[in-house]
Amino acid sequence: MENKTIDLLIHHIGLLVTMRGKAEPRTGRDMSEVGAIPMGAVAIRDGNIFAVGREGDVRAQIAGMTVKQEWDANGRLVTPGLIDPHTHLVHGGSREHELSLKLKGVPYLEILAQGGGILSTVRATRAATEQELFTKAKKSLDRMLLFGATTVEAKSGYGLSVEEELKQLRVVKKLDQCHPVDLVPTFMGAHAVPEEYRGRSAEYVELVIREMLPEVKRQGLAEFCDVFCEHGVFSVEESRSILTAAREWGFGLKLHADEIEPMGGAQLAGELGCISAEHLLAATDEGLSAMRRAGVVAVCLPATSFNLGLKTHARARTMIEMGVPVALSTDYNPGSSPTESLQLVMTLGCLNLGMTPEEVMTAMTINAAHAIGRADTIGSLEVGKQADLVIFDAPNLAYLPYHFGVNHVNAVIKKGRVVVSEGRLAESG
Amino acid sequence: MENKTIDLLIHHIGLLVTMRGKAEPRTGRDMSEVGAIPMGAVAIRDGNIFAVGREGDVRAQIAGMTVKQEWDANGRLVTPGLIDPHTHLVHGGSREHELSLKLKGVPYLEILAQGGGILSTVRATRAATEQELFTKAKKSLDRMLLFGATTVEAKSGYGLSVEEELKQLRVVKKLDQCHPVDLVPTFMGAHAVPEEYRGRSAEYVELVIREMLPEVKRQGLAEFCDVFCEHGVFSVEESRSILTAAREWGFGLKLHADEIEPMGGAQLAGELGCISAEHLLAATDEGLSAMRRAGVVAVCLPATSFNLGLKTHARARTMIEMGVPVALSTDYNPGSSPTESLQLVMTLGCLNLGMTPEEVMTAMTINAAHAIGRADTIGSLEVGKQADLVIFDAPNLAYLPYHFGVNHVNAVIKKGRVVVSEGRLAESG
Ligand SMILES: [Zn+2]
Ligand SMILES: [Zn+2]
Repeated sequence: MENKTIDLLIHHIGLLVTMRGKAEPRTGRDMSEVGAIPMGAVAIRDGNIFAVGREGDVRAQIAGMTVKQEWDANGRLVTPGLIDPHTHLVHGGSREHELSLKLKGVPYLEILAQGGGILSTVRATRAATEQELFTKAKKSLDRMLLFGATTVEAKSGYGLSVEEELKQLRVVKKLDQCHPVDLVPTFMGAHAVPEEYRGRSAEYVELVIREMLPEVKRQGLAEFCDVFCEHGVFSVEESRSILTAAREWGFGLKLHADEIEPMGGAQLAGELGCISAEHLLAATDEGLSAMRRAGVVAVCLPATSFNLGLKTHARARTMIEMGVPVALSTDYNPGSSPTESLQLVMTLGCLNLGMTPEEVMTAMTINAAHAIGRADTIGSLEVGKQADLVIFDAPNLAYLPYHFGVNHVNAVIKKGRVVVSEGRLAESG
Repeated sequence: MENKTIDLLIHHIGLLVTMRGKAEPRTGRDMSEVGAIPMGAVAIRDGNIFAVGREGDVRAQIAGMTVKQEWDANGRLVTPGLIDPHTHLVHGGSREHELSLKLKGVPYLEILAQGGGILSTVRATRAATEQELFTKAKKSLDRMLLFGATTVEAKSGYGLSVEEELKQLRVVKKLDQCHPVDLVPTFMGAHAVPEEYRGRSAEYVELVIREMLPEVKRQGLAEFCDVFCEHGVFSVEESRSILTAAREWGFGLKLHADEIEPMGGAQLAGELGCISAEHLLAATDEGLSAMRRAGVVAVCLPATSFNLGLKTHARARTMIEMGVPVALSTDYNPGSSPTESLQLVMTLGCLNLGMTPEEVMTAMTINAAHAIGRADTIGSLEVGKQADLVIFDAPNLAYLPYHFGVNHVNAVIKKGRVVVSEGRLAESG
């Protein structure tokens, strides 16, 4: 009896983008292979994909089974649930004041001197209660879901003390438990040197290694460890120490690398076998080669370079051609990228990084899944994988980045459950 | 009795941006004066503003009157309804295919040769029925409203024959009649030379002047006449002939000027006393001076230069400092600017044009009203003006362009009626 039930059948799909294919992160021409099927259907059972393909084939496969619910996609586009592999979701405050200052020509160093910049977010995050952080982050997470994200990585890094980092990570855990979007927690105590350690960064690095990492591990609050490797933040040496210790504790490794200057972050990511390296605007060919050899996923963040008004962007085309797998993300954070919209990132990926709509979709689904170690369960629509998918009110993949600045999501299915319908969060989200 | 009724009282407004002030288009420092009032309220009667200001003052003014409906803004930001003074709202088809070609490196001329570009939209528009055009445009207009636009200019210019131009304008009229958003119709038969007149542009100009203008006028289908003045489209001489004839028929004048090359479009707009000139990326100082002297509003379109990937943008800062009033618009169209979001245009106005959030708000309200000849009834929240306003889920003006790529609208009031509530179109829109 139980064996004969399909919980949800999505049918009448105009174009079904499955991303099915090889198990490894996609590189080069493989990034253009999106496994598109016209007139498709997806049959879901127990939150997983039971059958996927042409509607006729799917219906043949489930013939004789009871279908509890049918969902007419009405000729729309269906893709795997989008994955946002790099966000600073949980934080206090907002920094719109800095936009006005910047536009008035106040230099960033003066904004910093006035107490602005990342450390102002640290102050606001420390000042906020866990409940306040939860409420604010939930609103952003709702928005990410409404734009099509079904799995989101979330970093700490605005606490910068043992207790405050744990506080941020507890909020991530609580959100993960009560929200349809799955969260992947990353500990990033080495996001900045806090004010109270100014001029004593070596001591802060010690604190991260000797107290934060063990405690985060003990409480099981993070899967990955990330470090901001940049001049004036953490050096290559400091980053190596932290990540080496993190690896010993069993964390997966990530690195904010070569965002502003080519200081060897990409090489370090390759050397340590990081699962991903982020930003990479200034990464050299050698750095990218090191990443390619080690299979590090490049997470490009075009909303950040857009919002910072930079003239140069990450060299996504070079990466793709060199064989480095590329993922895309919002980098959602209150300083350099205050946006939850992966759909705007699609447009920026095309316009500013020169990626095609197919490459962009690969970068936000299967490659993003690889960047957070989840490619075995999400990132493509294949039998046995989690039933995370988005129904877009669009006729084809190119339409999403083309028709920009709006939201094309019609519905979102998470683990087989309809969590967004008619562009609205379903009741009891 | 009738004299004692307030239909709607919006109260508990955290920050009320009124844009009250002088009657002329705002220039220079006046573009930063947004008439902001903390803890405000707006009292509405018969679709117009009866009282506006500090909540205490407003409540004193309406003391003893019956208030039919109170609306708690819950501390949110309230601004005048946004005005989009330049759109190509009504058209057939979409052109996402060109994005893919462009990204694959296919030159624009080859895309044109393959039948792409503006003339493909002309073919699609001609092929569409009036009902099809209506349905498609209504969807976009709904979206504009959801992003906060309460008045939208809409041009013809994809018909390019007497009958087809009239068809487009009839759709604008029908939409205006049945949609909460007010539409301002502009005849733009001189948007391109149609295929059947290739090499015979002088004859097409004759057709516009001798047949289209009189017929559009006779049927009362447009208020303004616009011309695309550009190398390879319509020359300064041709543009002058068309607009001079249009003036004789009683149309207000607009001009797509100096978008790509500085060919004297801005000067022509000044010479003819156009109400507005559009694009202006290549306008010279002399051109801008001519506009300033004649009081022509510069309508800047940063979503277009963004989407075309241009490195240069309209010189809004120079315009503001020279005393040219600046308005902003989406330029919504299926080729160069497929977006309905004035909120993304806010962000682009700041990041790419260097405008402040206050200047941006001025450019989308009172100055945009001037650009379409409506400043006597809309564009600011002042006693006697139409009650068009937006309630944004934002703490201040800078937050709107800062937190980008999403929709901050909570509610929209059009002529005193709640037409968007909780970010959704109200029933029977
Ligand atoms: Zn980051
Ligand atoms: Zn235009």
